[in-house]
Amino acid sequence: MVKERLRKLRQLMKKYDIQAYLIPSTDPHQSEYVPRMWQRRQWLSGFTGSAGDVVVTLNKAGLWTDSRYFLQAEEELQGSGIDLFKIGLPETPSIPEWIKSELEEGDSVGIDPQLFSYQEARKLRQELGEKYINLESIEKNLVDAIWQDRPDFPLDPIRPHYLKYSGESVESKLARLREKMTEQGVDAHIISTLDAIAWLYNIRGRDVEFNPVVIAYAIVTKEGATLFTRQEKITEPLREHFNGLVQIYSYSDFKTHLKKLARSSARVWLDPTTVSQWVVDQLQKGCELFFKESPITLFKAIKNETEIAGFKSAHIRDGVAMVKFLYWLYNAVPGGGVTELSAAEKAEHFRAEQKLYQGLSFATIAAYREHGAIVHYEPTSRTDVELKPEGIFLFDSGGQYLDGTTDITRTVALGDPTPEQKDRFTRVLKGHIQLAMTRFPRNTAGNQLDTIARKPLWDIALNYGHGTGHGVGSYLNVHEGPHAISFYRGIGVPLEVGMIISNEPGYYKAGEYGIRTENIILTLKDEDGSSDEYEFYKFETITLCPIDLKLIEPSLLTEAEKNWLNSYHLRVRETLSPYLKGEELDWLISATRSI
Amino acid sequence: MVKERLRKLRQLMKKYDIQAYLIPSTDPHQSEYVPRMWQRRQWLSGFTGSAGDVVVTLNKAGLWTDSRYFLQAEEELQGSGIDLFKIGLPETPSIPEWIKSELEEGDSVGIDPQLFSYQEARKLRQELGEKYINLESIEKNLVDAIWQDRPDFPLDPIRPHYLKYSGESVESKLARLREKMTEQGVDAHIISTLDAIAWLYNIRGRDVEFNPVVIAYAIVTKEGATLFTRQEKITEPLREHFNGLVQIYSYSDFKTHLKKLARSSARVWLDPTTVSQWVVDQLQKGCELFFKESPITLFKAIKNETEIAGFKSAHIRDGVAMVKFLYWLYNAVPGGGVTELSAAEKAEHFRAEQKLYQGLSFATIAAYREHGAIVHYEPTSRTDVELKPEGIFLFDSGGQYLDGTTDITRTVALGDPTPEQKDRFTRVLKGHIQLAMTRFPRNTAGNQLDTIARKPLWDIALNYGHGTGHGVGSYLNVHEGPHAISFYRGIGVPLEVGMIISNEPGYYKAGEYGIRTENIILTLKDEDGSSDEYEFYKFETITLCPIDLKLIEPSLLTEAEKNWLNSYHLRVRETLSPYLKGEELDWLISATRSI
Repeated sequence: MVKERLRKLRQLMKKYDIQAYLIPSTDPHQSEYVPRMWQRRQWLSGFTGSAGDVVVTLNKAGLWTDSRYFLQAEEELQGSGIDLFKIGLPETPSIPEWIKSELEEGDSVGIDPQLFSYQEARKLRQELGEKYINLESIEKNLVDAIWQDRPDFPLDPIRPHYLKYSGESVESKLARLREKMTEQGVDAHIISTLDAIAWLYNIRGRDVEFNPVVIAYAIVTKEGATLFTRQEKITEPLREHFNGLVQIYSYSDFKTHLKKLARSSARVWLDPTTVSQWVVDQLQKGCELFFKESPITLFKAIKNETEIAGFKSAHIRDGVAMVKFLYWLYNAVPGGGVTELSAAEKAEHFRAEQKLYQGLSFATIAAYREHGAIVHYEPTSRTDVELKPEGIFLFDSGGQYLDGTTDITRTVALGDPTPEQKDRFTRVLKGHIQLAMTRFPRNTAGNQLDTIARKPLWDIALNYGHGTGHGVGSYLNVHEGPHAISFYRGIGVPLEVGMIISNEPGYYKAGEYGIRTENIILTLKDEDGSSDEYEFYKFETITLCPIDLKLIEPSLLTEAEKNWLNSYHLRVRETLSPYLKGEELDWLISATRSI
Repeated sequence: MVKERLRKLRQLMKKYDIQAYLIPSTDPHQSEYVPRMWQRRQWLSGFTGSAGDVVVTLNKAGLWTDSRYFLQAEEELQGSGIDLFKIGLPETPSIPEWIKSELEEGDSVGIDPQLFSYQEARKLRQELGEKYINLESIEKNLVDAIWQDRPDFPLDPIRPHYLKYSGESVESKLARLREKMTEQGVDAHIISTLDAIAWLYNIRGRDVEFNPVVIAYAIVTKEGATLFTRQEKITEPLREHFNGLVQIYSYSDFKTHLKKLARSSARVWLDPTTVSQWVVDQLQKGCELFFKESPITLFKAIKNETEIAGFKSAHIRDGVAMVKFLYWLYNAVPGGGVTELSAAEKAEHFRAEQKLYQGLSFATIAAYREHGAIVHYEPTSRTDVELKPEGIFLFDSGGQYLDGTTDITRTVALGDPTPEQKDRFTRVLKGHIQLAMTRFPRNTAGNQLDTIARKPLWDIALNYGHGTGHGVGSYLNVHEGPHAISFYRGIGVPLEVGMIISNEPGYYKAGEYGIRTENIILTLKDEDGSSDEYEFYKFETITLCPIDLKLIEPSLLTEAEKNWLNSYHLRVRETLSPYLKGEELDWLISATRSI
């Protein structure tokens, strides 16, 4: 079937006189999660993993994916005629490198310009240009052209996200945005990122999994604000909510509006990392383009008082669900029959009991023993294993609530941990606590803090490969920027008061086990640390859930670290106790005892 | 006099129809230190500080300089008609902001395109473009046009830097460079940075203060290598040294060669941060330009075995000079008559006694009491003060030796330090030691380590404003990249084995005192920390000089920190003792005792 699809695609490629065609995983909004109608890579290749890009030449085809999908991809690609390229292995070429080795000078590579950000397309053009290979934008998507029965545009109604949860009106958000536009002397700002549109217009939807966003574009000018989406998604409450501030147009009208803008003398603000090459193509040779990160990215990252209160409230309910889950887990595993998948389902069940729950915020990582060492492991029926009363279980999950988004990882010992496991767990915890306790001067970027969490592992020549923290949306995407606590993302972006971020150092021993401890933290002003000369900030931990004491080697903790842990556990107990009773409460009290 | 010069300049500006003219401090090679013939800003404005840029409009003029020169600039600019703009104060506009507020749309700003890197010019053009102000390259320097008796091109002979010090032949360096050029498919590489040329061709000179470089340009092609400099600087030993590998042309021939290149179909490698806009202007509309950091920057930063051995040897001699100086200082101050300037001269005297000494590597920072809080304070006859047997003295100095470059800071108590001073000194030292002791995985960038040195100050809500470390050249510039240990420089540049860098945290209390402890460190492989999974690196401290024990509060140090200090002092004593005798030796033994 895949072979037949590739054959048809190659016919089209010949028609367009291109020698390669790229099929990335993303969509016209550069989304992390993509609605079914845009899962072209999956349809074409048969590979169902969440991340992977396909390149098809006239006689070869390749899929690039990362280590968590190596096994799955090998199985799913069997007999497809698509070769697997394992990202991260030293011998694996990058996509442009591979294309350069396969194509000749003067050849052309086709892309759907909607599926590449302006910046990505520019970089790709430059890299291919080194061998004088052209990058050609083909407006018609060649996979769509051969894909019959393609799923429809999701038509779920758009739901207003009311002031009691958003804390700021659309009017106020538009005013702040227009102020920034005036500062830069621009007449219009084009927004194609779905969570930015959801934030700006206080709307939410169910168009993609995990991210409560609506598929749409938006254009904001000094006087007007427009939303381009499918008319079927519009309800009367939404019109009332917009109160005339936002004009609604059909999704397909967006192009016409771009063309109109292109004919004006307007100065137009575009975010180079998120706006697609296609949008730029529509505007180019017309109006004046101004490329800079959208101000919405920072607005959205700095939570207001309502959002912060919502986050705290959601994390109490999420903590209750997690305590119920962990109590259940410890008790159910010895009886047998609990697997990674069934544990994940059980946790979802406890979350679903909680007020304002809307769904998961990402695919649950329930990773037993050696699966824990695969950093983004997701259990599937193919990989699922039974949990036994031994070994280490890493559980990373989160929920979407109307008042906030959660993301928590706990690593638990189902039996007696080894001294090595206790040592590693305690070092990861030391890093977690050191980061949670740190104070830092105003204007410190998250990348300056990343090392604090790594240092206890570095001391014994160990490390972890991922960043330490990512921003989290307010009933929005569980991953958001611009800030991060990472050695490779959010570089130079200062942590501001009101930013929410995760604190999740880890340690992974390939083939044996994985450890990660993740809480959500909030940036605050440190009143004790602010003087005439310096203003200092600190973090407050928002996540409330016991950390497994069985995995801690107390002699490795300093007094200050022990005090942090004990007072954290005291707060967990005091805050969650009112919502628990009986054996669940007894378990919580025991799990949060002082060490 | 300045007024008359400004009047003449404005006449020229009118002739060229420009409404503003920029006179930066730098030269056509984007040098940090500039030969006298190119000190145009100083000649025009009368301001003699090392850093400061002047902007002249038809009716106003401004000098932008930083805090260390505020007082001096105020005095020197009196009656000049040039306003002082204090960089770093919140109310101070940037140069482009000020120009935008002074000029009208459609106006033009003139620059000498030799004095702006391609990247700076592009940024400036973009910023001014926001108000539709043009940036105009005027090839003739308008200050030179009115400057009679301008100093001559420095004609000191170029000296070969022999293999016993450089450790790598010109032939080998050219081969490595050409390999990189082939990788990028370029035909020629243009080099305008003076230390890059000095490194590549193994030459040194005396053309500017502190940096032992030669004023020249270079072009390397696949077959040829050229040096453009004044013929008067060429000697027979130099020709022998080049052995036909490098063709020598006149400095003024460089333009002709660029024009010739422009007419070819060559692909030409330019470093966008160091090549001047003028070079790009000569090439544009002709050959193909390829912009990327020069590979020489990294080559030069990774020292070979000969250079490392030279560094270590130079640091022994420099340590001997520093011990003699400190012994002298402690004994001379109570007698009276020692000032910041005379102390600096005395230290220079002790360095000059050492083998292979060539001069200072930068202007000595001899900063008593509150002067220490001015981060780059240089004593002048105007600011010089007498040292008394009380208070804190910060001394930051370095030497150029044929086999290496040194840069060391010691802060010493001339009397009894206060408990606060001891606390701050010890925290700075803790940061210094933590950085010196850290191990870190391969591919760690210096910016990931910067926080380690700050953490002990952050803990009590204090900080310092500068980076923690800079690269150091091998008998070359005391500041070199691409690496750094800093929150704002060298971001993402991995520290490689063989890189030399400074370790210099500090603390500055405005109006009271300054503290800094600086050693030079070398990156090594950490054999104990390297496994199948991870390769770890560590630092070796190269600088050898006692750290003032009187300023240490031992209760603030951990056992590991005390052990580091004691073993460092033991190494200082054992290494330097053979070169000292009598009271100097007794002092060294006492100053390096265990705590």
